[in-house]
Amino acid sequence: MPKISHKGVEMPSSPIRKLVPFAEKAFNSGKRVFHLNIGQPDISTPDSALEAIKIFDGHVLEYSHSAGFESYRRKLADSYAKSDIHVTHEEIIVTTGGSEALIFGFLATCNPGDEIIIPEPFYANYNAFAVTAGLTVIPVGSSIESGFALPPIEEIENKISSRTKAIVICNPGNPTGYLYSKAELEKLSTIVKNHDLFLFADEVYREFCYDGAVPFSVMNLKGIEENVIMIDSVSKRYSMCGARIGALVSKNKEVLAAVLKFGQARLSPPTIDQIAAEAALNTPQSYFDDVVAEYVERRNILVNGLNKLPGVFCPMPRGAFYCVAKFPVDDAEKFCQWLLEEFDFEGDTVMMAPANGFYSTPGAGKQEARLAYVLHKDSLTRSIEILKKALEVYPGRTN
Amino acid sequence: MPKISHKGVEMPSSPIRKLVPFAEKAFNSGKRVFHLNIGQPDISTPDSALEAIKIFDGHVLEYSHSAGFESYRRKLADSYAKSDIHVTHEEIIVTTGGSEALIFGFLATCNPGDEIIIPEPFYANYNAFAVTAGLTVIPVGSSIESGFALPPIEEIENKISSRTKAIVICNPGNPTGYLYSKAELEKLSTIVKNHDLFLFADEVYREFCYDGAVPFSVMNLKGIEENVIMIDSVSKRYSMCGARIGALVSKNKEVLAAVLKFGQARLSPPTIDQIAAEAALNTPQSYFDDVVAEYVERRNILVNGLNKLPGVFCPMPRGAFYCVAKFPVDDAEKFCQWLLEEFDFEGDTVMMAPANGFYSTPGAGKQEARLAYVLHKDSLTRSIEILKKALEVYPGRTN
Repeated sequence: MPKISHKGVEMPSSPIRKLVPFAEKAFNSGKRVFHLNIGQPDISTPDSALEAIKIFDGHVLEYSHSAGFESYRRKLADSYAKSDIHVTHEEIIVTTGGSEALIFGFLATCNPGDEIIIPEPFYANYNAFAVTAGLTVIPVGSSIESGFALPPIEEIENKISSRTKAIVICNPGNPTGYLYSKAELEKLSTIVKNHDLFLFADEVYREFCYDGAVPFSVMNLKGIEENVIMIDSVSKRYSMCGARIGALVSKNKEVLAAVLKFGQARLSPPTIDQIAAEAALNTPQSYFDDVVAEYVERRNILVNGLNKLPGVFCPMPRGAFYCVAKFPVDDAEKFCQWLLEEFDFEGDTVMMAPANGFYSTPGAGKQEARLAYVLHKDSLTRSIEILKKALEVYPGRTN
Repeated sequence: MPKISHKGVEMPSSPIRKLVPFAEKAFNSGKRVFHLNIGQPDISTPDSALEAIKIFDGHVLEYSHSAGFESYRRKLADSYAKSDIHVTHEEIIVTTGGSEALIFGFLATCNPGDEIIIPEPFYANYNAFAVTAGLTVIPVGSSIESGFALPPIEEIENKISSRTKAIVICNPGNPTGYLYSKAELEKLSTIVKNHDLFLFADEVYREFCYDGAVPFSVMNLKGIEENVIMIDSVSKRYSMCGARIGALVSKNKEVLAAVLKFGQARLSPPTIDQIAAEAALNTPQSYFDDVVAEYVERRNILVNGLNKLPGVFCPMPRGAFYCVAKFPVDDAEKFCQWLLEEFDFEGDTVMMAPANGFYSTPGAGKQEARLAYVLHKDSLTRSIEILKKALEVYPGRTN
């Protein structure tokens, strides 16, 4: 029997994968499990998108252009302009989800063996995309005490070697919800310029910024236009994760040409889903106002509730719909498993994502877990009650 | 400005990419261009698939399972059983097109620097997927004179080195339309077994076999069950190329587990499109009977027509909807460009795909071009007339 590849062995599993069997057992034993572990919003997909799917009247479900339908790219460019991001449709390549945009971006810019610097904790699949492209992730630590702000510039520069090819950020951040300020991004810009690196920014949560915060896109950093690659997706924006429509945006023509070749090889992104994504661009601002208001309430219930629990600390995120909290426990992964396997409060329990999966430094984030506030407010209130009771009796409690 | 990657530079363009500007110029100058160069069928997508899209009544377009909806995989397994291919739903991973299945398969089984042997001419994007995974394609030549039959076993064995990890075939073949016999596949099986290789078989054209030919799947080769990876797709079967739904099928649990990790990293294949693909499985046999009858007529018009042209030779394909023909010209690429740029017959011309793009041996296939018979019969008849007139006046004619 032939051996599988090193990459096949090295590909990381999702941070919650190990817990899934315990969640299934909990469910099968009759427990009600509140899933704080995943970022699948319960928010409705906009009617315009759902309607566009229903009225599709083609007779042949044909390929689109490998870079995506031109009509979609033109309207997408118009919609970016409303967020003060100014690009042409030729600077956009539509991809099959933001995931494909990152994979193509890595393949087109970095050679196997190159290093990419990522502030940790970070979206766990960045590790998987790095393995796919043969890259080494060099983490630079941000701390929960500072609310996961950008680490000091010197710490990032210390990580730069002759193999460093790119810096990757997610803004607003998954899993932290942290929103980088313009000043922080300008600091990054200086490093990127001085060391001639690419800067990848995953901005798929742009619409989810709270407390009046206005996100600043890397596309507006002056002087590094050729270095910047923005990753986008309709998944979270329009609660249409299942459409698998993303985009890679850049002013760098060489990068665009190389990415397009990867796009041509896989022929095209899905057709109907692009039609739905194009229609979703007609979604009125009131939809986002409602969704943001809803997420703010959910965030406040969850984060304020967590901070009221003795020994728990959770910085208040200003974007996305996740938070990372530190628990007074020996090991958050054990705690999460115990919640599913051994605990319930009146038949209820919660599932969280242990944060160690979001760090690539061994041992980092051991007491932390990521919680998504994509559930109804009542479920979040109940989840806080459950966690309160759980922490009172968890045998591995530390303080 | 940072440099793009070697892979970004090395990614091949499609064999027709260079001709596209000439096709656009021809179109803009008012010529009617018959596109024999692409495999986008004009056959209608089955009503069941289109209807499933229209009646989707979910409120949230959610992710599916990373391996694809279980209901779809179960029904897909049932449908394979009707073609005498016996697998469980757990031996199927749904992918975003057959392209992703091949990329995941290569990444999961082959290390960068490994070699894969492919009988040429072959589907040009296999080169692109090889570059993506860092693999080297080792071609083994098949000849138009023998109708593109499997090369002698010794020629294949001569290509095997310590870095050889897999053999890749497409059956029935794009671009040749050649259908491997059971005997040929058993010869391959012996090599695969003796040298402990993986065998990838792209069987996306399985339903398109003619003259009573019954395709033999690699899944039925005895004794190499752990070596075989079948690639499938709904694109051609149901004329739904834009759905981007494929599958990787194998009995090898290690391969499946590794491929699933790549699948988990990109989250899921598109949701609506899987629903459409699942519904398409209800397509009655009469649909295929009609389609196959139509393709046989088209094939006969095109291939018989080509063989009647002085100096042209085209083996009669028994599968898929392509053929490769040899023309009495100095250089088929020049001929194809000349057809678009300088020639017309009563305002009409044709576009073909020069076959050099389907060979990786430099200089091979220089007089050959691939023609797809996905157009209406009248268009194919007209195309033969156009080629006849063109060959009478082409300045680079050789005999």
